[in-house]
Amino acid sequence: MRSDLKQIGIIGLGLIGASVAAAVKSRSSSVRISAYDTDRQALDHGLTVGIIDASVDSIRALAENSDLILLAVPVNAAHECLSKLSGFKGIITDVGSVKAPLLVSAGRVFGDLSQVVPGHPIAGSEKHGVEAADPHLFSAHKVILTPSLETLPDAVALVSDLWKSLGAIVVIMDVKDHDRILAQTSHLPHLLAYTLVDLLAVENEGLEVFQYAAGGFRDFSRIAASDARMWRDIFTTNKKELLVAVKSFRSRLKAIEGLIEEDQFEELEQVLLRAKAARDYFSSISDIK
Amino acid sequence: MRSDLKQIGIIGLGLIGASVAAAVKSRSSSVRISAYDTDRQALDHGLTVGIIDASVDSIRALAENSDLILLAVPVNAAHECLSKLSGFKGIITDVGSVKAPLLVSAGRVFGDLSQVVPGHPIAGSEKHGVEAADPHLFSAHKVILTPSLETLPDAVALVSDLWKSLGAIVVIMDVKDHDRILAQTSHLPHLLAYTLVDLLAVENEGLEVFQYAAGGFRDFSRIAASDARMWRDIFTTNKKELLVAVKSFRSRLKAIEGLIEEDQFEELEQVLLRAKAARDYFSSISDIK
Repeated sequence: MRSDLKQIGIIGLGLIGASVAAAVKSRSSSVRISAYDTDRQALDHGLTVGIIDASVDSIRALAENSDLILLAVPVNAAHECLSKLSGFKGIITDVGSVKAPLLVSAGRVFGDLSQVVPGHPIAGSEKHGVEAADPHLFSAHKVILTPSLETLPDAVALVSDLWKSLGAIVVIMDVKDHDRILAQTSHLPHLLAYTLVDLLAVENEGLEVFQYAAGGFRDFSRIAASDARMWRDIFTTNKKELLVAVKSFRSRLKAIEGLIEEDQFEELEQVLLRAKAARDYFSSISDIK
Repeated sequence: MRSDLKQIGIIGLGLIGASVAAAVKSRSSSVRISAYDTDRQALDHGLTVGIIDASVDSIRALAENSDLILLAVPVNAAHECLSKLSGFKGIITDVGSVKAPLLVSAGRVFGDLSQVVPGHPIAGSEKHGVEAADPHLFSAHKVILTPSLETLPDAVALVSDLWKSLGAIVVIMDVKDHDRILAQTSHLPHLLAYTLVDLLAVENEGLEVFQYAAGGFRDFSRIAASDARMWRDIFTTNKKELLVAVKSFRSRLKAIEGLIEEDQFEELEQVLLRAKAARDYFSSISDIK
């Protein structure tokens, strides 16, 4: 933990915000953490288990005492939070799954982006809330930072060092690349999973069809168990890139459907083999089995 | 194990065939198992580890000595195997993922279906081959049987009792329902997973995009690691039902895409909530978490 980082303010003490607090507290006794949340019970729990030092009643109060503010709220709540930080001189970072809109919002509020370092930890859990806080949640996980050209190198370095000190692997990426890549690798898969489960539910009223679902469906449908409101917000916030990805997917699916329709067995096998090779490569470069 | 079942003949000593053999052997010392496979080494391995009593050089030789023949070959190899069983008077069952074509093939070969009991264990593993044989593979897993109206009740009872003795839960289902339900719950998810991974591979030549793939994609892409040839055969064998399912999916996806395009946030959230509710129900009725 860098010595010039003395006070962290966290807005939103859910799973991610609370895990950052727990991770910092487990590694440093000199950094002070204050938190704001609309849920008073979450703050009280954070105080009780000792992952935060203080709770405050407003975002303005948080801004007065922090060197760095971490926004850990749903993507479409970020704009309103930012507007209350107008005049804040410290560093601002966040943890949202969509990054371009945050830079736009921050530009409107602050006029310049010199202290704004958008971030996205590629980590999560099926659990929710402050009770699920995990100081090891970010260990060996990637955190993508998408600073603008205006962001000061010192600000990027400080946020990067913070994540590294929590065990994360930091990657700097262009904001458009981030939103495009995440649309393809995360937002589209979630949308497909929700669509499949919804289709099955609508076409099979008694849901008896689910009794015969095997492993393939299990892997698929686990994704659709995620928080509906959070994903609605991600889908609508990353609308532009997601729609590009969905349209590409529909068109590719139609092409593969054509191979089946016209009994083009060899071509179909080539597609499946190529996908399997890509998946095996993915498996080989990640800790993912 | 029923006392009138003395000799089982297994065609195809891969994961499923060998696991049936291992499961029978671990539960009964009185049933004799012979096996045929084009892969001589698989048979030798089966003999060495004691999951089969004898290997034979031809399907005809197997037919001479068996009360029941279990076809455990890829779905589109079944027809050729059946044609070599012409004249066999015992019970015939199988383990394929698509059932209507097997009944058609069997009808052509045998003229009647009185002894034909198509079966589909909803169980599997990412491992392949006789070496992966697991005597517990079917424990607490469903096995769907799809007899025709011509199939004798005694034949259905014998196959049903065999699976139950291996720990499986037997479900009798209309053959068309089976192929439609499996198209929706298994074949379509696999096709979507292959399509997504292929799309990402084609659009991102260096495959660097996979480095940023998180949990959602992991669940999704695991499915695309399955055997390409086997899935090509399943897709083409269950062509009719799969195409119905794919077309429904594409149309549903286009509708949800429309909700995102037109900022219909409430309607979108309703879809996601309905999918989550269906998935949670699925999770509650199965051993699947």
